[in-house]
Parts: sequence; C-alpha cells; structure tokens
Amino acid sequence: MNKVKGLKSKDLLGLKDLSLEEIKLILNTAHSMKEVIARPIPKVPTLLGKHIVTLFYEPSTRTRTSFNMAAKVLSANVTNVALSSSSVAKGETLIDTVKNLEVMGVDCLIIRHSMGGAPQLAARNCNASVINAGDGFNEHPTQGLLDIFTMLEKKKTVKGKKVIIVGDIAHSRVARSNIWGLKKLGAEIVVVGPPTLMPKAIEKLGVKVSYKLDDEIKDADFINVLRIQKERMEKNLFPSIEEYAELFGLNAERMKKAKKDVIVMHPGPINRGVEITSEVADGPYNVILEQVTNGVAVRTAILFLLLGGKTSG
Amino acid sequence: MNKVKGLKSKDLLGLKDLSLEEIKLILNTAHSMKEVIARPIPKVPTLLGKHIVTLFYEPSTRTRTSFNMAAKVLSANVTNVALSSSSVAKGETLIDTVKNLEVMGVDCLIIRHSMGGAPQLAARNCNASVINAGDGFNEHPTQGLLDIFTMLEKKKTVKGKKVIIVGDIAHSRVARSNIWGLKKLGAEIVVVGPPTLMPKAIEKLGVKVSYKLDDEIKDADFINVLRIQKERMEKNLFPSIEEYAELFGLNAERMKKAKKDVIVMHPGPINRGVEITSEVADGPYNVILEQVTNGVAVRTAILFLLLGGKTSG
Amino acid sequence: MNKVKGLKSKDLLGLKDLSLEEIKLILNTAHSMKEVIARPIPKVPTLLGKHIVTLFYEPSTRTRTSFNMAAKVLSANVTNVALSSSSVAKGETLIDTVKNLEVMGVDCLIIRHSMGGAPQLAARNCNASVINAGDGFNEHPTQGLLDIFTMLEKKKTVKGKKVIIVGDIAHSRVARSNIWGLKKLGAEIVVVGPPTLMPKAIEKLGVKVSYKLDDEIKDADFINVLRIQKERMEKNLFPSIEEYAELFGLNAERMKKAKKDVIVMHPGPINRGVEITSEVADGPYNVILEQVTNGVAVRTAILFLLLGGKTSG
Repeated sequence: MNKVKGLKSKDLLGLKDLSLEEIKLILNTAHSMKEVIARPIPKVPTLLGKHIVTLFYEPSTRTRTSFNMAAKVLSANVTNVALSSSSVAKGETLIDTVKNLEVMGVDCLIIRHSMGGAPQLAARNCNASVINAGDGFNEHPTQGLLDIFTMLEKKKTVKGKKVIIVGDIAHSRVARSNIWGLKKLGAEIVVVGPPTLMPKAIEKLGVKVSYKLDDEIKDADFINVLRIQKERMEKNLFPSIEEYAELFGLNAERMKKAKKDVIVMHPGPINRGVEITSEVADGPYNVILEQVTNGVAVRTAILFLLLGGKTSG
Repeated sequence: MNKVKGLKSKDLLGLKDLSLEEIKLILNTAHSMKEVIARPIPKVPTLLGKHIVTLFYEPSTRTRTSFNMAAKVLSANVTNVALSSSSVAKGETLIDTVKNLEVMGVDCLIIRHSMGGAPQLAARNCNASVINAGDGFNEHPTQGLLDIFTMLEKKKTVKGKKVIIVGDIAHSRVARSNIWGLKKLGAEIVVVGPPTLMPKAIEKLGVKVSYKLDDEIKDADFINVLRIQKERMEKNLFPSIEEYAELFGLNAERMKKAKKDVIVMHPGPINRGVEITSEVADGPYNVILEQVTNGVAVRTAILFLLLGGKTSG
Repeated sequence: MNKVKGLKSKDLLGLKDLSLEEIKLILNTAHSMKEVIARPIPKVPTLLGKHIVTLFYEPSTRTRTSFNMAAKVLSANVTNVALSSSSVAKGETLIDTVKNLEVMGVDCLIIRHSMGGAPQLAARNCNASVINAGDGFNEHPTQGLLDIFTMLEKKKTVKGKKVIIVGDIAHSRVARSNIWGLKKLGAEIVVVGPPTLMPKAIEKLGVKVSYKLDDEIKDADFINVLRIQKERMEKNLFPSIEEYAELFGLNAERMKKAKKDVIVMHPGPINRGVEITSEVADGPYNVILEQVTNGVAVRTAILFLLLGGKTSG
C-alpha cells in the first residue's frame, strides 16, 4: 500500500487514467495544501527523508521550479537532473536510467520528455512513483489539474460550462489533459484552431471542433489560450504570426464579443501579441498568474497523495 | 512591512541606492553573521520555509555558490535556475518570468543578467525581494559590500583612505558598486586604467582618473585590481595582454613602490599573470580569499535583513 | 582532528592510498549506513550545517545523484556545480576554484575531472575534504568500494577468489580502483581485453593479463564488465562494435562456460548488446542494480567518516 486516501496508481501519468473521484480527491487535497502554503512558515515534515528527482529531458523553468517548491513545502529532498548534465549523452536507455534511480532509493521521479509515453514507460519499469511533467504531445496532467482547480475557484462548477481551447491543438499536451479532465467533470469543450493544427479525429474525445474563434466566443465561460510555438511555423503549419494573431489571437476587440464574466487562461509562457495581446493577458478576465499559484498547490497535493503514506526503501 | 531593522527597500539593487545608514546596518549584520557561520553547526532556522530562487542569465560558480551557502545557513529553500535550462529559450520576457516566480510563492529572487537594469526592472514588477547579483556594467552590490566589509576589517575606517581601482573601469560593475559605496563612507578613490577602458565622465562620480598606476601606487591604502576579460581585447580595446600587464598589472616590482601596509584586493576569478602576478595575488598584502569568506557573511546578512521579518505568501 | 574512527586522510582520493584497515572501516560503516537508509525516514542529523559541493567537470547523472542522496541522508547542505555553469569558462585554475570554495566554508568537495590527478591537486591545496568522484583514467574510488562491498555481500570473502575485469582496461578508472582494492583484500585478478585497450606494464599491479575471455571465464567467481566508450572506436583502438561484442562481450552463450554461482557486475551505464547482452545484464548472475543501491550506502559512509567529527569553519 503506497497510497493515501485512495489514488489507485503509484503514478500520475495523465488525466485520461484518473477517475472522477481521483480528480476530486486531488483537487480537494490541493485546496488544503493551498492553505498550508499560505502559512507564515509554509513547511510541514510530511515527506521528510523522501527523495524526489526531477528528470527533465526538455528545458523548463516554471514547471521544475513549481515542483521544487512543492517538494520543499513537504520537506522532501530534491535532486534536479537536466538533459545536458545527464548520462543520456552516454546513450543509456530511459528504462536503465529510471531503474538506477529507483534502486538508489528515489521515491518519486518527475519526468518531462519530448516523447509521448516516456513517463508511462518509466512507470511500468520501476516501483518509484512517476509523475508526468509533460510528455510530447500527449499529456501534462499537473497543468490540466491546475487549470481545472483554477476554473473551480472562479465558478463553482464546470459542469455544463462551455470551455474553448484555442490554438495548436495538435501539438498540445495541455489541451489533451484539459479535455480528459474537463469531460469527466461534465464540461462542454470546443477546440478551435487552424485546420493544419487540428488533430484528426479529435471529435472522438467528445469535443466540438471549430475553425472560427469568433463563432464560439460569445457564450464561452472559459477560454484557454494555448501557446503558439513559433518553430511550428517553419514547418508551414500556419502562414504567419500576423495571420494567426488576426484569426485566433485573443485581443481586446475580440473580447468585446465575450460574456462579461468569461475567464481567460493560458498555460504560459505567453507570446505577447501572438496568441494573446498584453491587454487581454493582463486584463480583468485573466487568471493566468492564479493558475501559476495554484500549480504549486496542485503539485504539493499530488506529492502528498503519492508519497505521504509510503514507507521508503 | 517586510523589512527588519530598517532597510528601506524590499530589494538590494545597488550601492547607489543605499544610504550610509543602510550600508552600516548591512556591514554590522554581516559581522554577526560571520560569527554564526563560524559555529560548529552553522545553521539557524530564521528563513525556514522561505523560497529563494537564483535566476542567473550569466554563468557563475562563486557568486551562486556563495548565495546558496548563505541561504542554507538561514535554512531557506533554494532553487537554482540557469539560463540554459530556463524558459528564456522559449522567449518569455524577464517580467513574465519574475511575475511567475513571485506568484509561485518565491520570497526572494537573486538575479544576474548581462543587461544593466534587469534586476531593477524585475524588482519594479514583483513583490518578492530582488537581489542584484551583477547586472551588465552597472552594479554588483554584494561584491561592493563584501569589499568594503573586508576593508573595514583590515583598517578600522575607509574615511580619507586612498583606494585605487585599477583595470577595465568601463565594463566593471564591481568598480561602480565600490565607487558608490566607498564615496558614501568618505574614501578617496582613484580609478586607473587605459583610456580605452575608462568611461567618459566617470569623474562625475567623485573619483580621480589616472592613466598611470605607478603615479598613484605610492600612497594608496587599498588597491582593488579588476579582472581583465580577454574577450575585450578582441574588440581592440587594449593592445595586448603583455602590454596591459606591463602598464597596469600588479607585480612584485611595482608593489615595492607601495606602502608597507597596503591592502591588495581582487573580486576574482584571477587571471594570474595578467592583471596580477601570482606572487602578489598570494602575497602578504592580499586579502583576496578573505573577501570570498566575507562574501558569504555579507550575503547571509542581506538575506536576513530582506527576508527575516517577512511573512510568506 | 577531522576524522572519526580512523581514516588517516582528510580526503578520499583512491584505493591505492587506503590501507586494508581503512577499506574495512569504510565497508563496515557502509553496512551500518545501509540500515539507516532502509529506515522509514532515512534521515539523520549527523552532518547538519555541513556544506558539500559537487564539482563535476564531466557530466554525470548517477554518481552525482548518488552523492546528493547520501549527503541528504546525513542532512548536509549540497550545492551542485557543473562545468557548463562554472567559472571554468572564465579560465580560473582548479586550485583557485577549490581555494575559493574552501574559504566560503565548504566542508567537502566531491570532484569529477577528465584529468587524472585533479582531485589530488585540489586536496593538496585546500583544507576541505576532497572526494574523488572519478579522475581521468586514474581512479573512481567510490565505485571500487561499492563493487567490493557488493562482492562481499554475495560471497563472504574475496580472498583467493578469481575476479575477471574485462574491457577497456587502459581507459578505465573503475578497473584501477578495483585492482588496488581487491589486491589488498587478497583477490586474484585477471584483466581481459584487446591488446590495444590493455595498458603497458599493468602486470606490475599484480594482475594477470589475458586477451581471451573464453580462456578465463570457466573458474571465475566474479566478472566485472567495463563499459565500452564508443568514442574510442573512432580512434581505431578496436575494429568494430560487432567484433568487440563477439570476442569480449558477455552473452548467454559465453556464460554457459562460467560457474553456476558466478557474479556479473557492471559499473553502468550499460551499452546493451555491446559489452553485455540484455539477457546477461538482467539475468540471474547479475548484481548490477545492487551495486547502484550499495553506492549510496558507501558514499554515505565516506561522508560520515570524513565529515562526521569535523567542526566547521
């Protein structure tokens, strides 16, 4: 038994795999953790002696720092391993790396990898808890959970609410984790973007597909704006930054069509003037920085749930 | 009120901005911290639960390690973020990076940046404390403070003492922080270097300018030797390493002209045989390693003063 | 007196320098540490307030992480310095770097360097404890000690036992540390590899040299398989991966000739299909992951012995 209060798996790999009850458990625990973090001395001894390794095969400031802070709130030990300083250069397989860390006594591996499925592969091959911190175009479950946590803070429920996810749906692990989670909570999801950035058969996930943001914006309760990665443009997946901004960017003009109480979200980092203008990103509807704050609470909750009742070794 | 015993700002950005009283407060606190650090177990719980991030856009071993050690003496959490592993690659602005770290709950950002003014920009845009760990050619205030701390350990006062700062004045943030601080404490400063490495209108800071080290060395109480960055030479700012060493390098021969009790300082890392010979760098007048030791005490003091009375969150 | 229970030196530089009694002391202490690490909360306050710096001039995941975990079990502070983020780029000498870290208050430097002798140079020039985490082709003493620890766990003694070390003997610091240690414990060692990868006069260390693995495998008690670094091949030191695997690789077919209770070891990371097949690496004889587990215990023991009774400052 290495779980507390009911997460079924030793790992957190994706919202696809979580039951509604598990999602609610994480969100409730995150609520408690947010209170712990707000204390004058935000440190509890829960994970004293636990060893956590962040194993990042892609660069990251915010996600890695957020996990570090979460781990330290719970008094865990953290060692950060980045690609450039890792034995990947020596050609070791992911499975061998993970097994080695496991037998060293690592209790939890937080893995980011450019290849979808890498954390799953790691999880199947070790007894340590594995947390997916973003795998290719597949999932970024802690981002999905912090998005949902933030939505629920703003509106009491997402059930029946209309959520627009706009941008590069095809290459977005954030979109996928949002879709899996929000569907379980009963939201109505519309994915919006240019046809070239829309994955085939995405409707099968139970979402509506649209190519016109202006058609959808009127009755949206939430708009989750995805980051545009400029390197996609080099591959001719969309014509120009300007045209993208014109058709799919969130700007003050377009926001006039939205509901007064719409919530604007972005997983960061923001390309100001591309997918969102500064006026909107810093404007009254936005909860972007609240998402970041909630990220620490959600990650603290996940570490607590996965490791809190586990005896080491 | 997020300050203890009187630093006026939440930030430490430069000696230009500090009052004489504030400089003295930091130096006195550093004196106490030096005693704490000398204890068998140099660890106090003052900053337990505080989150410190070092955000370094330039490489650094010694400054980053020194801040890490200071933070750990005070039991703070530290997360190190270096350029190569940061989201700078993704094009996020400094302000967004800083705001994100702030809302994660980071209490203090220690920033090194190649652009003068970057920490100031960060400080204006977040509520966390910002410490300037070196910004372009502007300031390196903790180095300035540790230099002054060391000077005061060696001679009771710097008032009326002659301080030579020799080298690449134009590109030296160390020179600038020394000048701002030492002027406030009443020292007489002479900056010495080749004309190409002397900034225009530097006299306006209240210093004397000289192009001949041999003219100035006789009655100096302190000689602060700046590091020569060889990459400047490629830009033809000075003719050759040999000629520089001949005219401005500190060597045993030149030291014969100096007072018996002159103090030789260097911010490190040393280019042995360029701006200073090993005979002088390791010789009786030098306090170079004492500067490094004092750096930890000064940085511990600054963290204590900025964060010691602050409630988190 | 900065030693506990009898290590003669403040440093751990190589098995060449350790007496039989010191090796036994480390192994016995590692045995106790293995019990500490197996506790539900594997954390003791022994090194509270001690500052440890890992100074790695070569990339490493496993060794660096293993030392980090060992340090945290003992509640020490750890700061990791890697080449890419270090002042090496600024041309500082190793001695200056080490002296600077010493005077900052660092109690222990864990150094990996591509140049044999670098940790020894560091150790002679500072009062902090220096641990060699691998220096060029010279020694990797903590690997040697964890190898011996694992051997003794499997067979009660290595005295009179036949140990084959197979691979690139010439460029292996692991081989050298094993030879120095195992000879002191009375093992019979045979080094096996292609002539181009066999150092001249290796027999002088008291080992037998062989160029045919099949001749030696029959009566071996331990086979320590070295990693083949493919970059050697570019220098024409051996003809091809395939030919190497054929002649010196450990595969299931070759293992049929070995004793039933032979122990197969590898320092990792493994090149599966080159020096060892997956069938053997993951097979019944292998103790490869146990070596990794024991590495944390051995490193914890060494930190404990070097720093446990030392007063800081």
